[in-house]
Amino acid sequence: MTVEDIGSQSSGAWLTREELESARERLPILYVDAIPVRLDDLGEVTALGLLLRATGHGTISRALVSGRVLYGERVRHALLRHLEKDLGPLALPRVPPSPQPFTVAEYFPIPGITPFHDPRQHAVSLAFVVPVEGDCEPQQDALELTWLSPVEARDPAVLAEMQGGQGVLLQQGLAHLGL
Amino acid sequence: MTVEDIGSQSSGAWLTREELESARERLPILYVDAIPVRLDDLGEVTALGLLLRATGHGTISRALVSGRVLYGERVRHALLRHLEKDLGPLALPRVPPSPQPFTVAEYFPIPGITPFHDPRQHAVSLAFVVPVEGDCEPQQDALELTWLSPVEARDPAVLAEMQGGQGVLLQQGLAHLGL
Amino acid sequence: MTVEDIGSQSSGAWLTREELESARERLPILYVDAIPVRLDDLGEVTALGLLLRATGHGTISRALVSGRVLYGERVRHALLRHLEKDLGPLALPRVPPSPQPFTVAEYFPIPGITPFHDPRQHAVSLAFVVPVEGDCEPQQDALELTWLSPVEARDPAVLAEMQGGQGVLLQQGLAHLGL
Amino acid sequence: MTVEDIGSQSSGAWLTREELESARERLPILYVDAIPVRLDDLGEVTALGLLLRATGHGTISRALVSGRVLYGERVRHALLRHLEKDLGPLALPRVPPSPQPFTVAEYFPIPGITPFHDPRQHAVSLAFVVPVEGDCEPQQDALELTWLSPVEARDPAVLAEMQGGQGVLLQQGLAHLGL
Repeated sequence: MTVEDIGSQSSGAWLTREELESARERLPILYVDAIPVRLDDLGEVTALGLLLRATGHGTISRALVSGRVLYGERVRHALLRHLEKDLGPLALPRVPPSPQPFTVAEYFPIPGITPFHDPRQHAVSLAFVVPVEGDCEPQQDALELTWLSPVEARDPAVLAEMQGGQGVLLQQGLAHLGL
Repeated sequence: MTVEDIGSQSSGAWLTREELESARERLPILYVDAIPVRLDDLGEVTALGLLLRATGHGTISRALVSGRVLYGERVRHALLRHLEKDLGPLALPRVPPSPQPFTVAEYFPIPGITPFHDPRQHAVSLAFVVPVEGDCEPQQDALELTWLSPVEARDPAVLAEMQGGQGVLLQQGLAHLGL
Repeated sequence: MTVEDIGSQSSGAWLTREELESARERLPILYVDAIPVRLDDLGEVTALGLLLRATGHGTISRALVSGRVLYGERVRHALLRHLEKDLGPLALPRVPPSPQPFTVAEYFPIPGITPFHDPRQHAVSLAFVVPVEGDCEPQQDALELTWLSPVEARDPAVLAEMQGGQGVLLQQGLAHLGL
Repeated sequence: MTVEDIGSQSSGAWLTREELESARERLPILYVDAIPVRLDDLGEVTALGLLLRATGHGTISRALVSGRVLYGERVRHALLRHLEKDLGPLALPRVPPSPQPFTVAEYFPIPGITPFHDPRQHAVSLAFVVPVEGDCEPQQDALELTWLSPVEARDPAVLAEMQGGQGVLLQQGLAHLGL
């Protein structure tokens, strides 16, 4: 049985929606957050990718690539799976070789404990910057992918369109990139 | 309700042993690993602390400070709680100010996927080096705390006494410290 | 001959002011930048220390602890030396045990290449966050040390009082700290 | 005048061999060290590249890609320049987007102060792991490039063929990569 098998089993048969809801009230849930970036030949960031997502309440917000790590799944496999889910199969993401995230974002159901907030759960997210080299086609509930320059990405109007503290996480990513 | 309240409730009433067993078969469980160190005035590591633990099978093994992050609990609070549990209330641990771990160790129930293995569960552990300044008194199932010099800690005989890949994690910590 | 001897010789006899001026036109000069912080018992930053310095031109600006690494000097020794020089001998700085800086700031004599600018030289600076536990007494050309909360330190009015891009470096430090 | 102009001027006209010799006795010299790696689609390291170099004394040793940062040169530009010099123009190195090195290696002319030693100078080196995607053709004094698996790279016989502590640096890189 490979890692992938374990992962797909767990996402399918092993955890019903009710069971996930129940777990979310009792355990911190492991997440990954990814900031997709375009690099020039020097390795310097020229653009950062933000998704436009339809939220459940009929509004639209900007978001990072983000999602749960499944039982039996490697963190780097979860990163790739969520990048492919949101950016399409031709995005060619370059998951960084080190397991060290640039930060760990702790999302609490109660706002104000950290800059991060998720009303559904206590999620702890490993955050990575991921260069993508291919063509991105937003998928599923991602309506659009917008590439912003580092200066545009710092615009308070842009950051205000992000939810749950992801604007803070984006700024932390920019800082980690020396921008 | 403070974070501590949420944490202690969850460890008490919210998750029975059966429920934890069940969750362990379905979700990655968030852990922290800590390498306690003694520093000199220059901030250089003079000694690393390894616990001597009685395992369930009547054997003894060396171990890092390690444990689960509870629902509603900050990662830094989990670090402090496990350090205090293993090293006693007077250890004066100095949890580092940045949330960035030096590595992330992925423990799988199947050996060989990563260097890390935990037969009970899929655990994902944020690993930190934590200077301790006070007096350490091993508690509970920690029989003894041994301070080893960086050279002694690299001894294959010492590393062989650690289980589940913690010898690898200790070496990764030594490398992060420039040793 | 100890490291300290080499260091003090080089700062004294081995490099005259003219020689340093000459080297500054031909080689990148190695620096360290330190952000002094106060931590609470959880290791969370409660305050960041900014110096008030008289500049050569009769103006006053806010600054981080910063200075050159000498020939033969360990980076961590240079950090301690500059912290002691600016904060006084009782500051009890806790230089972090890992040699990994949270970022590297490249100061160029020409503005605009990076966010960092130093008209005197091309300096490359290893930046660290350094908890200080003792009493700080600004020394020499440091007129005052102000402790700011993380919220105050992000105030654009404060950042605007910093020169050469140190406001950017302070923000990068805040981001690294998860703030 | 671009950064490249400044860099090439300084390496050409601005610093004679005698001047460099003189500076090396008075200032720490800024270096970069790069560990070239091959990644699979998950971003996991499959191989590490070690150079075979002829040393001045008629012996051969294994080495990382390494070299000086010039006056006016960005660190990432120095990395690219040395990678191209040693691996050839078709290596397609992917310099990481963050300026944070995985460690800082301090090479002293006197052995024993740190694990790193350079009889010529006090060099302080920013160390990076750099994925390379193209064809590598060792150039100049690099006789050969050998790709080793992570297991092979940890072989004491391999590490013993490296000089000045680069075997330690390679192990620190492996640890940073979670290997």
